[in-house]
Amino acid sequence: MRSHMCGEINEQHLDQQIELCGWCHRRRDHGGVIFVDLRDRDGLVQVVFDPDQAEAFRLAETVRSEFVLRVVGKVRMRPAGTENAGLPTGAIEVFATEIEILNKAETPPFPVENDSEVNEETRLRYRYIDLRRPVMQQRMRLRRDVTRFLRNFLDDSGFYEIETPFLTKATPEGARDYLVPSRTHENSFFALPQSPQLYKQLLMISGMDRYYQVVRCFRDEDLRADRQPEFTQLDIETSFQDENQIMGLMERMIRELFANILHVKLPDPFPRMNYAEAMRRFASDKPDLRIPLELVDIADLLADVEFKVFAGPANDPDGRIAALRVPGGCELSRKEIDELTNFVAIYGAKGLAYIKVNDLDAGLTGLQSPILKFIPEPAITAILARTGAHTGDLLFFGADKSSVVNESLGALRIKLGHDRGLVHEGWQPLWVTDFPMFERDEKNNRWSALHHPFTAPNCSQEELVAAPGKALSRAYDMVLNGTEIGGGSIRIHRTDMQSAVFELLGISGEEAQQKFGFLLNALKYGCPPHGGLAFGLDRLVMLMAGAASIRDVMAFPKTQSAACPLVDAPAPVTDAQLRELGIRLRKPPVAETAS
Amino acid sequence: MRSHMCGEINEQHLDQQIELCGWCHRRRDHGGVIFVDLRDRDGLVQVVFDPDQAEAFRLAETVRSEFVLRVVGKVRMRPAGTENAGLPTGAIEVFATEIEILNKAETPPFPVENDSEVNEETRLRYRYIDLRRPVMQQRMRLRRDVTRFLRNFLDDSGFYEIETPFLTKATPEGARDYLVPSRTHENSFFALPQSPQLYKQLLMISGMDRYYQVVRCFRDEDLRADRQPEFTQLDIETSFQDENQIMGLMERMIRELFANILHVKLPDPFPRMNYAEAMRRFASDKPDLRIPLELVDIADLLADVEFKVFAGPANDPDGRIAALRVPGGCELSRKEIDELTNFVAIYGAKGLAYIKVNDLDAGLTGLQSPILKFIPEPAITAILARTGAHTGDLLFFGADKSSVVNESLGALRIKLGHDRGLVHEGWQPLWVTDFPMFERDEKNNRWSALHHPFTAPNCSQEELVAAPGKALSRAYDMVLNGTEIGGGSIRIHRTDMQSAVFELLGISGEEAQQKFGFLLNALKYGCPPHGGLAFGLDRLVMLMAGAASIRDVMAFPKTQSAACPLVDAPAPVTDAQLRELGIRLRKPPVAETAS
Repeated sequence: MRSHMCGEINEQHLDQQIELCGWCHRRRDHGGVIFVDLRDRDGLVQVVFDPDQAEAFRLAETVRSEFVLRVVGKVRMRPAGTENAGLPTGAIEVFATEIEILNKAETPPFPVENDSEVNEETRLRYRYIDLRRPVMQQRMRLRRDVTRFLRNFLDDSGFYEIETPFLTKATPEGARDYLVPSRTHENSFFALPQSPQLYKQLLMISGMDRYYQVVRCFRDEDLRADRQPEFTQLDIETSFQDENQIMGLMERMIRELFANILHVKLPDPFPRMNYAEAMRRFASDKPDLRIPLELVDIADLLADVEFKVFAGPANDPDGRIAALRVPGGCELSRKEIDELTNFVAIYGAKGLAYIKVNDLDAGLTGLQSPILKFIPEPAITAILARTGAHTGDLLFFGADKSSVVNESLGALRIKLGHDRGLVHEGWQPLWVTDFPMFERDEKNNRWSALHHPFTAPNCSQEELVAAPGKALSRAYDMVLNGTEIGGGSIRIHRTDMQSAVFELLGISGEEAQQKFGFLLNALKYGCPPHGGLAFGLDRLVMLMAGAASIRDVMAFPKTQSAACPLVDAPAPVTDAQLRELGIRLRKPPVAETAS
Repeated sequence: MRSHMCGEINEQHLDQQIELCGWCHRRRDHGGVIFVDLRDRDGLVQVVFDPDQAEAFRLAETVRSEFVLRVVGKVRMRPAGTENAGLPTGAIEVFATEIEILNKAETPPFPVENDSEVNEETRLRYRYIDLRRPVMQQRMRLRRDVTRFLRNFLDDSGFYEIETPFLTKATPEGARDYLVPSRTHENSFFALPQSPQLYKQLLMISGMDRYYQVVRCFRDEDLRADRQPEFTQLDIETSFQDENQIMGLMERMIRELFANILHVKLPDPFPRMNYAEAMRRFASDKPDLRIPLELVDIADLLADVEFKVFAGPANDPDGRIAALRVPGGCELSRKEIDELTNFVAIYGAKGLAYIKVNDLDAGLTGLQSPILKFIPEPAITAILARTGAHTGDLLFFGADKSSVVNESLGALRIKLGHDRGLVHEGWQPLWVTDFPMFERDEKNNRWSALHHPFTAPNCSQEELVAAPGKALSRAYDMVLNGTEIGGGSIRIHRTDMQSAVFELLGISGEEAQQKFGFLLNALKYGCPPHGGLAFGLDRLVMLMAGAASIRDVMAFPKTQSAACPLVDAPAPVTDAQLRELGIRLRKPPVAETAS
């Protein structure tokens, strides 16, 4: 039906007879001639209908936006002065001799333009129109290019893509599972996988050596921020490699990906930072290194002050006092500081103390702050020195439980970076390593796994059990521009260690057997040392596309309320279907007959 | 941890110091020396431990089957006469200087050998042992190779891999859906897709032009034969191509696949046969052309006989009388013929008439048959002539409703082909085309779609509505050795035609709108002509692997009762989980507290 794609036509096709198929992007009638911009996946080309070609002209007159057309014509140069340098095909046009209307179209609900201002609900309801926008086509192509590159890299590195089941058992990632009632097994349910974690470990136990999968994962979470009920993971696992080998291979993959797709050179090697340092300097386990602001600990300087706001956290083993220096921050108004105080309050901070350094050389009189009177001058001098304050800078302070200081100053750091235009251009990848094995779940008075319960500690079983709170794990996260794009670990490969970790997590004998018996069993039959990693593909592509949301790099995403306005899912089902599955609704709609 | 894979070591590595990781496949102590066959994904190599290497020897003495080992050693030739020609590494051995036991192993529930005789339940429960068997490793590798080849072919042909949702709306393939209760939308359910059919059509409407996806599909069917609740499809759709272009591209893909992976040359082009001919000659819409047996229609010769068994079907427009000539079939005993009679009874045949042609030249006396007396001699002569009977042949007859004759003689043809060793070696691909649009659903007194309701007819809307039973579709199936490996069609791309088909199928106004409103709507906004195809990847790989079941080419299949004995899914869930989902069990287990 066609000889070429619209977007590929250029001067090389001059005087050739060509056939094109596509959509009428725009029709203009000008000087007795009809111009149709014909659009397909690869671009736009201008088609000209002249009254001399009577039959074609007559049909072209009936063409409206988004009609599907087949055009036969000859390529010619555009008249001098009418070229469009902004278009790859802008030097030429197609002089049409034939046109076939393959399908008509009603006026679309919004124009097929990159800058269409449409609310997201409408975009999703008419996703087939939205996806015609060139920017969406480019994003789908980028996603395809990225996926293809990653697959090829892994294929070439000896990884086997192996498919794991979707109808499986509740997984232990901690989020809520999507459940699937079984029709054939009474009162039993499958769970959709939150990740193929245990299957990939079983594949290592199976001797598959190197595995990967581009795989859908499911989490029935409340969709805060930019989450989706189903998302795609590049899931990877390998045997007989340690964390350095795995990190090395993975960062090479990402480096080559960026070089090939975005023509960007990422650092070789990626910087590595342990969790403790990341928290200390950036109050985040996924620091955005493009923002040149850092926290400085000052609790030791304030241990003896009387001011309780500082004295409390300074003498609390779980407390933290940190300063964040904002270069040129003196220019922040009282109102702006109040707004920032409200901002950190979201993260639990009870206030936001500050010092403006109006004139560093003027001693105390050069400083402006509501808290000056509470702090002895030597401490102030030491703080100024340690933070490296300059005239014109402002220092913000956080003093509270460590978790509150980290969350509030970590968020403040990012906000100030963006608000004040401090974010460096470019890409800043980073490995974060040496995570704690456990964090204290105070509410339930037990340990919980920072990664997941299959992560290996970097100490012996005896050391782990003796001081779980001190143990670090062999986990590693890949962070890019402040977003965690991948995370993984060396896994536990011995039954005794795995049982010990379960026990520390409060998963004891029978429960461990019921939930993870198959894993504990499998570990007994010759499990190789192994580890791996999973990348969030949606997020990676989103970053590479410069898109604002993962929804923009998925063909058919769900709304924030986990629904699809396009096909109208989820939807009611018949009572007969429920009966077959052995379930009933708790609150059947009133109109429904009782079952 | 290793310098090489076990399977790759050969004479080229002579005298090299190498490091290997793997499993102890077998340990033998012979002549004061310990031999360990070390196994990894790529093969086996013989490692020798000599008492001179005291430390290594001492550890090697503790090694048992399936222990995970790391070995350092030097490659040397095996002593003359001890080579193993059956093994790629059989000329050499590794003289070990170091051994590290990376993990111990209990005695596996069955030996890791290709010929282990284990029941399938045990194989699935210990799948991680089963998958270590070399034949299973080869199958997983074949599957990876096939998938990779197909992806690359489609990538290179301009197809974009695009992911479609798994949490979606009930699809119209006709099988039972797996349902997923929504937590956030009261009394609503997602359905897992039986195929991405409508999404791929929406992608065509989105201007994506060429799409493919290796995608999981779900059908909650009773698992007769060799079905699985979840299976993998290679799903393909393209715009602006007709059936000949699509079939041409697809058969080229399969031809190149077989050439590359199996080094087999498939015919170019694939033979094509329309549905009517396939049914007439082979009583099947997926004929196995390796079997050189064909049906011959003889109803016209029997229209006037008095014998009701023949006269009835001969004069019934829905009836059929066909003969199946079995070369050399005279040797079939009375007992064997009785068994075949029982066999066709499974398919509804009320009997199995036959004629043995003991001596073609002897007239009626050369024939042996219980039905001779009911058929006039001229008819017998004509039947012998038309079937091309030779001395020694046997003719089987089917006379009944067409559907019964086709099912029974179609099955008999295949059985005889296999039982009598008539199946030709090799690969016999075939396109079957020109399927009827509809078949009569007598029970519900309406039409049902032979393919699916989105398949385009090869006639006008007026012709379709005037005679739905006569209309043929633009569908095509790819058949290989009697198995349908792929099927597809040109789709309907106009709203009016789609509405007309829905109406013929009894899906009227509101129901059509509720079920398929989004499609009918989308067709209005400029839908290109499009079509596609889906391959059953599991089945294709199974055929290529020479495996007996699709379960043998899936890493973690379900049992025939749709359960996974490995992770023990499906499983009961807590009442709290059900409550969150707004559902309850119809028959809660007695021990459970009422909710």
